[in-house]
Amino acid sequence: MTRIDDLPIRDELRGKSPYGAPQLDVPVRLNTNENPYPLPEPLVQRIGERVTEAARHLNRYPDRDAVELRTELAAYLTKTTGHEVGLANVWAANGSNEIIQQLLQTFGGPGRTAIGFDPSYSMHSIISRGTGTGWISGARNDDFTIDAERAVEQIRELAPDVVFICSPNNPTGTAVGRETVLELYEAAPGMVVVDEAYNEFSHGDSLLDLLDGRPNLVITRTMSKAFGAAGLRLGYLAADPAVVDAVQLVRLPYHLSSVTQATALAALEYTDTLLAYVQQLKGERDRLVTELEALGCEVTASDANFVQFGRFEDAHATWQRLLDHGVLVRDNGVPGFLRVTAGTPDENDAFLDAIRATVKENSA
Amino acid sequence: MTRIDDLPIRDELRGKSPYGAPQLDVPVRLNTNENPYPLPEPLVQRIGERVTEAARHLNRYPDRDAVELRTELAAYLTKTTGHEVGLANVWAANGSNEIIQQLLQTFGGPGRTAIGFDPSYSMHSIISRGTGTGWISGARNDDFTIDAERAVEQIRELAPDVVFICSPNNPTGTAVGRETVLELYEAAPGMVVVDEAYNEFSHGDSLLDLLDGRPNLVITRTMSKAFGAAGLRLGYLAADPAVVDAVQLVRLPYHLSSVTQATALAALEYTDTLLAYVQQLKGERDRLVTELEALGCEVTASDANFVQFGRFEDAHATWQRLLDHGVLVRDNGVPGFLRVTAGTPDENDAFLDAIRATVKENSA
Repeated sequence: MTRIDDLPIRDELRGKSPYGAPQLDVPVRLNTNENPYPLPEPLVQRIGERVTEAARHLNRYPDRDAVELRTELAAYLTKTTGHEVGLANVWAANGSNEIIQQLLQTFGGPGRTAIGFDPSYSMHSIISRGTGTGWISGARNDDFTIDAERAVEQIRELAPDVVFICSPNNPTGTAVGRETVLELYEAAPGMVVVDEAYNEFSHGDSLLDLLDGRPNLVITRTMSKAFGAAGLRLGYLAADPAVVDAVQLVRLPYHLSSVTQATALAALEYTDTLLAYVQQLKGERDRLVTELEALGCEVTASDANFVQFGRFEDAHATWQRLLDHGVLVRDNGVPGFLRVTAGTPDENDAFLDAIRATVKENSA
Repeated sequence: MTRIDDLPIRDELRGKSPYGAPQLDVPVRLNTNENPYPLPEPLVQRIGERVTEAARHLNRYPDRDAVELRTELAAYLTKTTGHEVGLANVWAANGSNEIIQQLLQTFGGPGRTAIGFDPSYSMHSIISRGTGTGWISGARNDDFTIDAERAVEQIRELAPDVVFICSPNNPTGTAVGRETVLELYEAAPGMVVVDEAYNEFSHGDSLLDLLDGRPNLVITRTMSKAFGAAGLRLGYLAADPAVVDAVQLVRLPYHLSSVTQATALAALEYTDTLLAYVQQLKGERDRLVTELEALGCEVTASDANFVQFGRFEDAHATWQRLLDHGVLVRDNGVPGFLRVTAGTPDENDAFLDAIRATVKENSA
């Protein structure tokens, strides 16, 4: 039998395993930051309608420039942030992962480097590797905030071509202040990408308004979380129109299928309904923080739809014990900490029962 | 206003324009090798049904490994080629372009090279550039077949990590013989990728059976052409299971959306109906060849759903004259030649009328 390492694969891939959380069949799955609320039935029907209509023209290539979808995404951003952006500012792709890949193919790549502040969204470094971009691991403070002074020093010294700032940060939930982003932008010689995948869950504002007069700034977003559409794989960015032009030099032609465009457009018709779910989830997220703190846990301040909690002598053993109680959370490898996604009230109750039992076992 | 070149883009992207055929609003569009037949209405309804069902779980990530879809694609290949392949042999992505990109990220990339035999599918070289893979342009004979002897010499001398063989070849329509593929495989130090995007239109067999005992061989396919689903963006590959494992090291996690998987599965239920359209198109393709030859054109032997024809002193002027007659064909930059996609009988009649008028004008 041929194995991977028998093939002429790239050296840096040898011995690696594919990225991905364990997909386990467990009653309560709070491990991948999915939105626990299924789409409302009228939206499900509307998706069926719009996709059926799109299927009538499926023999033709999709709109390569996704003009209608980008226009609606721009309208959504304008409405929810109060900062006006238009078609020319917005680009969309198959998940924010493909957005990140296109940005790295355009502004990173062989002979160039990117920096991110670990622990953070691991796809930033993984896609850097996949695109031949050198990776620099910047550090955070003990409370998981970015130490702007040290970060600026690192950027000045190492001159990375791309700076990733994840806000709110995955897996810690930490929001990054506007002043910090501005300091890093001023120091950066290349592009600054603010990953706002979880922005809708934040206590604070989007940084979209910072785009004005800053052509090297990019804000990335996704429909996976706030829109409850992880299965759709629709990520997007807002930036100067020149950035949108530039990524088209590397985008695969017709990358975004007609069915993806039709489904995303249907979901955008239901923005108000979906954002009401976001409000519920923010309440549940805050409840998780309060209850975990009441249990004596160390909880990282969260602006996302998940909460990082600890501190455990053996986080992985705690992860396993929660799993034994039928609750799957995420061990992101942050020493002493685990991450739980805000689920439905019932799911969160099940998690809180499980963690209470686990903490009791720990101290017994 | 900021322009692309004001941004810190990669040097090799400077001055480039995005790939893509002109999208013009013309009565008869025979320029992108689309299948002219819309999907039958029962299939359109079935897509609506399956996507509606998928939308009920859209808040969850898709099946990362697309197990059901890959199983059905394997069954399709087994049934239509008589060579048995299974789930472990098949991988799927957003268009064969993403398949090619994943292959190049795994087996090509910085410091490595790929070879293709021009003129051929230009995305092979464009995606090579996008992944930092050096590109080697191999040559063809005057009749657009691959000169196996020279190709073997080039491969021995330059030792490319990836060899692309497009069969039937786009834009020429040329099939590549089994012996040629075997000779090139024996000479190649790395992977050999046979792009069979147009295989279903061929007079000859698929090369799928060559996979046995050849772990460095990959066959790529698409649902864009034979399945009449260019708007779906579903490409796939068949290879040794180790290749399928290897590309998962670079695939973006959850790259294939639930709606894409649902739509492709619906189309696979209608294989027999869709392959009947393919038979019609093969007849029309052969008619185009006959009629163009009767007109005195030089026609490249075609195993695809398109025909390359010439020889024109100024191919672009002829392209423009056909457009003036309301017929859009493709100028792929092959000196003296144009490419026309086999459309419906009416579309092909319109094209033949236009080219007759054009040839008459030329000789007037």
